Parts: sequence; C-alpha cells; structure tokens
Amino acid sequence: MENKYALIMAGGVGSRFWPASTPEMPKQFLDFLGTGSTLIQLTFKRLIKFCPPENIFVATNTSYFDLVRQQLPEIPVKNILLEPARRNTARCIANAAYKISAVKPNSSLLVAPSDHVILNEDKFLTYVNQAVDFQAKNPSLITFGIEPTRPETGFGYLEFGSTTTENPSIYKLKSFTEKPSLPVAEKYLNNKSHFWNAGIFLFSVDLLVNEFKNHIPEIDNFYRPIAGFNTQDYLAEVNKHYHNLPSISIDYGIMEKAKEVYMLATKNMGWSDLGTWTGVGDNLSGDQNHNHIISGKVILQEVNNSLVMIPEHKKAVIRGLENFIIVDSGNALLIYPKDFEQEIKNVVEEGF
Amino acid sequence: MENKYALIMAGGVGSRFWPASTPEMPKQFLDFLGTGSTLIQLTFKRLIKFCPPENIFVATNTSYFDLVRQQLPEIPVKNILLEPARRNTARCIANAAYKISAVKPNSSLLVAPSDHVILNEDKFLTYVNQAVDFQAKNPSLITFGIEPTRPETGFGYLEFGSTTTENPSIYKLKSFTEKPSLPVAEKYLNNKSHFWNAGIFLFSVDLLVNEFKNHIPEIDNFYRPIAGFNTQDYLAEVNKHYHNLPSISIDYGIMEKAKEVYMLATKNMGWSDLGTWTGVGDNLSGDQNHNHIISGKVILQEVNNSLVMIPEHKKAVIRGLENFIIVDSGNALLIYPKDFEQEIKNVVEEGF
Repeated sequence: MENKYALIMAGGVGSRFWPASTPEMPKQFLDFLGTGSTLIQLTFKRLIKFCPPENIFVATNTSYFDLVRQQLPEIPVKNILLEPARRNTARCIANAAYKISAVKPNSSLLVAPSDHVILNEDKFLTYVNQAVDFQAKNPSLITFGIEPTRPETGFGYLEFGSTTTENPSIYKLKSFTEKPSLPVAEKYLNNKSHFWNAGIFLFSVDLLVNEFKNHIPEIDNFYRPIAGFNTQDYLAEVNKHYHNLPSISIDYGIMEKAKEVYMLATKNMGWSDLGTWTGVGDNLSGDQNHNHIISGKVILQEVNNSLVMIPEHKKAVIRGLENFIIVDSGNALLIYPKDFEQEIKNVVEEGF
Repeated sequence: MENKYALIMAGGVGSRFWPASTPEMPKQFLDFLGTGSTLIQLTFKRLIKFCPPENIFVATNTSYFDLVRQQLPEIPVKNILLEPARRNTARCIANAAYKISAVKPNSSLLVAPSDHVILNEDKFLTYVNQAVDFQAKNPSLITFGIEPTRPETGFGYLEFGSTTTENPSIYKLKSFTEKPSLPVAEKYLNNKSHFWNAGIFLFSVDLLVNEFKNHIPEIDNFYRPIAGFNTQDYLAEVNKHYHNLPSISIDYGIMEKAKEVYMLATKNMGWSDLGTWTGVGDNLSGDQNHNHIISGKVILQEVNNSLVMIPEHKKAVIRGLENFIIVDSGNALLIYPKDFEQEIKNVVEEGF
C-alpha cells in the first residue's frame, strides 16, 4: 500500500459556472451537486480508498491554500503544492512526482482532477487496481479513457491501438487528439476508435521523472534539486523561477513522446467532467418534470427541464420556464436558457 | 397655514409584493421605484408642500414604529398614531381627527395612503388647494376621484352627481361602489359616470367628528375622551379597548351616510396605487424593450416587457424572458410571468 500516491489537480478557476463559481471560489470548492460535500471533498473521499491521506497531494493556486486547508484538513500541509500561477498540467504533476520519487522508489501516482464526478466509485477503484497490477510488472504511463456515449465536441479524445496481453482493457495509446468537429466526433463514435480524454492518469513515478528528464529538461532541472525542500524554501525557489518554466500539458509534453504509454479503457463509471450546467444536471436525479434543484427552498410551477441552485435557506417561486439555468450565488443572479450556456462566460466578462 | 393637517395611512402589509414586500418590511417602507426614497418618504415629501411636518400624522401598526422613526425623523413622535391591529380606515382617521379637533377648530385634514405614487405633484397640490378653498366656505367631506383610463376591475368606484356652483371639478357624491365586473367597469368608462376611488380625502375636521358621533357612536365614545392623552396613556387605553371597536371603512361608515359629501374629479395627476407589479412598471420609464430595472446591475439579452428588482449591488444576467417579473429580496427570489401575478400571493401563502 505504501507505494501508492495520489495527486488532486485543483487549480481550475471554473469560469464557465458564473455566478456559482468565481475566481475567489471556483467550482471544485463548491457543493455543486447538493450532496453536502464539495467536489474536491468528493474527489478526496474517492482517493482515500486507494491510498492514505498522508500520501495524497493537492496542486493548487497559492490563493486557494486556505480553502484546501478548510475543506481537506486530513491532508498534511506539506502535501499542498502551491503554484503562483496557472501553467498547465506538466509542472503540477512534475512537482509531486519528484517529491515522491525522492522518498519512495517504485511508486505509482494516481492523478485526478478535483472537479469531476465518478458515480460508480467501486468500478473506478477496480479499474485503478487493474492499472496498478499492470504497472507492477510493466512500468508505464497510463491514461484513463472514457467510452464515448455521444459525439461530444467539448472534449479531447484518445486514439488507441492494440490491446495488451496482460489486460484486455489496457491498450497501447496511439495519439491525443484536440477537440474534434461534430462530423469527426461522430466518426470517432461510430468507429469505436477513440475514447474521451478525462485527464486521469496512473504513472510509474520513476519512469515519469525519467521521461521529464528526456523530454522537458527545464522541468527536470528545476524540480529535481528542490524535491526535498520544505514548503517555505520550495516556495521561495518557485516564486523566483516559475515564470521561466514552460507551460505545457502532460499530454503533449510527455505522453505523446514517451514510450510505455497506455490507455485504460473504462466503461460505465458514471464519469462526468461537470463542464457545463447541462452536464451537472445529467448527474442529478430530477423531479417528474426533469428539473434539478441543487439547493434552496424552491416552488416550481410549469417549469420543465431546468436547473435551480440558490442559497440553501433562500426561498424561490418560479413559473413558466422551459430549459433554463437559474443560479443565485448571493452576489449574483443568472437566469439563462440552457441552449445558450456557452455564451454566459462571454457576457459576464464583457458586461461587468 | 396652521389649520392644515395631513394623515399618512401606513398600516398596509403589502402582501401582493412578495418577496420585495413582507409583513416585516411592507411596500410603503421600500424604495419601490428605485428613486432613492421609500414610498412613505415620497408621500411625506408631497405632503410637506401642503402643511408643516409637525402637522403631519402617520397611522401605522405598532410593529412599524421604528421604521417610521427611521424613515421620517422630521415627524414628531407624538404624531405617530399606533394601532395594535389592522382594523380598516375609520378608526385611523378618527384617531387623528379627534386629536386635531381638540386643539384646532376649523381645520382641514388631508388623508393619503402611504404607498401610492402621484407623478404630477404640482397638479395634485392645485387640486388640494381647490378643495381647501371650497371647504373654507362649505364645511364638507371631500373624496378625490381619479378619472378612469381603463376598465379596471381591481378598484372601487365613485358615482358622482351634479357639479357644484363653486367649483366645476367638485361634484356631489352619489355612492361608493365595490370592485365591478369587467362589463360593469366598461360601462362606467363609456358613460363617464364614475371615477376611481383613490382613498385620498380632505375633511373639515369639526364636521367629521360630528359625523362620527352621528353614525359610529362607539368610535366617538372611545376617541373623544382620550384625544388629549399622551402617547403612553393613549396606547394603554387603545390596547384595552381596541378589539371592541367596529372594523369599518371611512367610505361605508361615514361618507355614504353623511351630508356634505363631495367628489373632487382629478385628471392626469399621474396617480397609481402601485397595487400590482404591472402597475409599478407603468410608473417607470423603461428601456427600448419596455423593461424596467428598478435596482441592481443587470444585463438583459432578448428580454422584453419585464421588471427587475434585485439588491442594489447585486449583478444579474438574464436572457430570453418576455413579460416577466424578476424580484430578488436577498431572502427570496421570484421569477413569474406578469400574466399570473395575481396568483403569487396564494403560492407563497400555501407553499412556504
């Protein structure tokens, strides 16, 4: 057990979820599903079935330190990896990987976004354990693919090759693809040639730091010498040099170039990136009119297929809406048709 | 000037305006038009053009004493006439009338609701002065009629007879009528036989107390002996006997039975009772899409003919609504089609 580690990626600013989510209080720190736990707490609860809290790291922005401490008091302070700015995934992951590699060779590192949901946790853990078993014999970099259920154009895709002899769910990975157009996404779906890229990984840590050395030497040069530093010394170093480091995703910086890269093909885990309000609604059980009340004391009349999220003790009376998002954060109110939700972000940025 | 008095009727609980108006903070104490003044403050500002603050009384519920003090500090405490319960207009008016009659014979008392709006104040004052002039020679009870502009079924009406020789705008009053059905309201409008009953009066005070004695002796017996009491002694008396006094309107208790009852026919004063959200909107200048934003930092897209009232510093983004009322009081949120606004009160009473 002791050579299992996890990293929660919690740097997102949730700009698509105004006004529920703001730069001061992004999505991962909110009880977005009305379950009583925030999304990062749900992620943490999922991961402690894999490894103990002292083996779980959180990578986040400096300004969210207090939120992480408050919401995840079980995680040691030294495991909160602070970044002064948002600079893509490669560096957050390197940060954790070099620390782990310095103290515990032959470890596996599970990387997971802080703001996704996985409804079937048992299935998720079964997949994780399969990946761990595979990795015990085959040091490797494994990305978790999600079987597509619709021609989604908002995700990146994973193109996979032949299956491995060790596990029929683990495939050689061929390539990462950018968000496709609708016809391309439809082709992927029909051909069953691609899975969704969920940003969930299991890495053999020693192999990973070696691949950083091979493919992003600037990152290796920076993180390797400071891996054993305490938080204060580390932050001093990071603040000095952070802006000189490349901003690159782990997908393009490492996974596309390394050998021993695999995709674990997951199915029916109940995964969602909660990337849109509609996506959030899909993960909630609705009333008989397909409305989702996340929070608030709400009376609906002639309202259908809508989502309501207002402060817990606030009352609302709403009538005559179809296919709407209604969110009241206390500071701001959104009443918007679901069909146009992609435009909310722009309206807010330009309007206020 | 010194024999001019005014009484502001401020006992209403504004139940039709949830959630902006609540029993704790009814409509008259709110800045309902986004002007920077509450409705009762607007009423006060209108009346001090008629008489000085020390001659203005406010009749309200005991529980609103602090609100009146806060919003109208110019009015002497002894002029705030508190009622332990809401018991119609006759007693509030008697309360003020006996006090005035005891200290100042030959006075005129202007009575006005606290939550109406009159856009053309100069015209209003001209009418008031006409009534005062008429009353100087003819002690009388004058009710202000509003010329109907639509077959409104939500108001009572005044049926008037022949005009007086003194003033062509002052008519003998024939009768008060209840809220009519639509065909009846249409007949009134076509026949020009009726004006709206606005609940605004100018009374010759000595005549009024005499009519109380003639027609509602219980009220005369109660108020006459205590007219000179200080607030504390008065409240002790009222709390003891208030529940025994009849609950009756000045219209039916006095005006229908007394002689020397007249209607002043007002036209184009810009009067509104603000009795419905739609009525509120009618008194505001809208944007090019006929939307009325009373308060808040609001961005509207494809929104028409709607009314928005949210906390002053709150932001809102609203899209795709037609003919809606959107009110956020902080504690509660209403999103409701204007066409069904009569139902809001019932939904709130039954639902919460």
